[in-house]
Amino acid sequence: MADLPPIRPGMVIGILGGGQLGRMLATAAADLGFSCHIYCPDPKSPAFAVAAARTIAPYDDAAALAAFAGSVDLITFEFENIPLETLHTLGTQAPVLPGPMSLEKTQDRLVEKAMVAELGIAVPPFAPVADQADIYSALARTGRPALLKTRRLGYDGKGQALVRAGDDPVAAWRTIGEKPAILEAFVPFEREISVILARGRDGATRAFDIAENVHAEGILSTSKVPAAISAELAEEAVAVARQIAEALDHVGVLAVEMFVSSDNRTRLLVNEIAPRVHNSGHWTMDGCTFSQFEQHIRAIAGWPLGDTRRHSDVTMDNLIGDAVDTWPTVAAEADARLHLYGKAETRPGRKMGHVNRMRPTSTR
Amino acid sequence: MADLPPIRPGMVIGILGGGQLGRMLATAAADLGFSCHIYCPDPKSPAFAVAAARTIAPYDDAAALAAFAGSVDLITFEFENIPLETLHTLGTQAPVLPGPMSLEKTQDRLVEKAMVAELGIAVPPFAPVADQADIYSALARTGRPALLKTRRLGYDGKGQALVRAGDDPVAAWRTIGEKPAILEAFVPFEREISVILARGRDGATRAFDIAENVHAEGILSTSKVPAAISAELAEEAVAVARQIAEALDHVGVLAVEMFVSSDNRTRLLVNEIAPRVHNSGHWTMDGCTFSQFEQHIRAIAGWPLGDTRRHSDVTMDNLIGDAVDTWPTVAAEADARLHLYGKAETRPGRKMGHVNRMRPTSTR
Repeated sequence: MADLPPIRPGMVIGILGGGQLGRMLATAAADLGFSCHIYCPDPKSPAFAVAAARTIAPYDDAAALAAFAGSVDLITFEFENIPLETLHTLGTQAPVLPGPMSLEKTQDRLVEKAMVAELGIAVPPFAPVADQADIYSALARTGRPALLKTRRLGYDGKGQALVRAGDDPVAAWRTIGEKPAILEAFVPFEREISVILARGRDGATRAFDIAENVHAEGILSTSKVPAAISAELAEEAVAVARQIAEALDHVGVLAVEMFVSSDNRTRLLVNEIAPRVHNSGHWTMDGCTFSQFEQHIRAIAGWPLGDTRRHSDVTMDNLIGDAVDTWPTVAAEADARLHLYGKAETRPGRKMGHVNRMRPTSTR
Repeated sequence: MADLPPIRPGMVIGILGGGQLGRMLATAAADLGFSCHIYCPDPKSPAFAVAAARTIAPYDDAAALAAFAGSVDLITFEFENIPLETLHTLGTQAPVLPGPMSLEKTQDRLVEKAMVAELGIAVPPFAPVADQADIYSALARTGRPALLKTRRLGYDGKGQALVRAGDDPVAAWRTIGEKPAILEAFVPFEREISVILARGRDGATRAFDIAENVHAEGILSTSKVPAAISAELAEEAVAVARQIAEALDHVGVLAVEMFVSSDNRTRLLVNEIAPRVHNSGHWTMDGCTFSQFEQHIRAIAGWPLGDTRRHSDVTMDNLIGDAVDTWPTVAAEADARLHLYGKAETRPGRKMGHVNRMRPTSTR
């Protein structure tokens, strides 16, 4: 990236994907003087409401992609399931950051896990499941319970099925739609944590304080900072995230979700990588001077990374589905900052907003 | 306002004026789930880049105003020089907050000063200057030096001229364009402060910590929080701002600039009222959980006002004209948060952005 000059205020950042992450990236970019152009197939994309320009088109519309790339100075994305072909096409016209490797290695759960394991980083035992017959040999490697996950396009617990003792594994195979999959051992964990780390074009990295996460039905429910882990373990977690970012030659924000194992043999196990800003980093909007969104924009823009110190402890609670209807109560709390995504339709399991509840900084 | 129901997330807030204040109001409103429609005659308005809808039309375009009012659930404004007639027209179609009295009393410096004086609040000695002949009698009341200011449409030092000992007052009269004016005594002051106070629809008020301001060539240069004033004086300043807000039946954020007199007889003198978010409140974006922009939106929306505690001390420096070119240096400072307004053209005296420089909270 050394040959790419930093982008200047007034220039245009193109963002692929128009969900809440794109929306929060767009307002962070605007605050630094950039103009944003959102590209998303969904005409109701929440990010459109805070962007200077919008393109509504599928991700394989060559003409729309060309026009988009021609109108921006730099391209980034808010989610990892963009076709690689799309990124390659765009990349011939405008710089795209993070680069294609960040997507290539994380779009496929099997490729991702294999890469992490090859780096010598601990992951739960896993095995590929290409067809129904593979499930039994895979189960022999992972033991039970185990999670069967589609290799591609799963998120928020979608495309996953649990295989417990006594369960018919073929039922799980059917649940996930009989698609190429990965079977992962369900490791007993003490807690789930995530590292939100940014890597600049120059290779510099900075991590926010580590969040402790609680999921419900496969969807992130709460992130709490600081996580109740030792400084030593926190340092190890950041080192793991940094190693992954470097292996991907990642530029931008990267999230690495990990388990803290409840047996003492392996302490950290990498669960999932997201090559982008992440729900478990939303607390930074109110707990730090620079949010993960500004940090991502700084990283891809070629600017110095922002300081990651936290000025307040935060518990971030997602507002999922009907929970958004609690907004009047939240708005009346003295230390709760409400963030709503402007989604017209409330659906079960849909992320409608989040609340950051602030506390004075602890010494941890 | 008791009969007006609170507006809900998903509803549309119309903002008159598309400058940086409108821009920052729009992103704050979006964060609460509102959609914004900006109305501004200037096609290059910085606020357009972060709004869901925009109308480019003069403030007296009846058809455009009607279409705008018909498309929004609530109307507010980012500057006080909107024709009263415009507000009245809009008000027949949609709620407008703050109400017309807030504008009526602050659009005209003479009306404003007279109102404040009638409330029993100290102001610098002043006198009306309707034509050239009035200047001499006015000077007899104010003494010299005195500031001659147009009654209407002045901002950032425009429409002002100083009359010192030995100066020909007629020259000042010509400088301001021979327009209806007010002559104000130039009082010796120890410091300039401002109170940023919000008043809700229910009459509840909340003030941010008081900022100490430095102007250069009539334009705000720096605001520093906390101001180096006693707790007693701070309390008095807030009481003055509250009294003014109540007299105006103001709903929303209001800024009151005051002098702390350097003689000891009268301690606070009201200099200027802005019935809106204000440059000297920009520090709240990074020093408090809820910024003045969110506070204004909460107030007009009929929501509870946000907590105004500050978690960090802040010095806000405006980036005026070419000073915006220092952005690469500012971006590299660990504790400096850069805010740029996305204005295409840099002009001398033009506010291009600001920097909030953070320090740990002092005990003051």
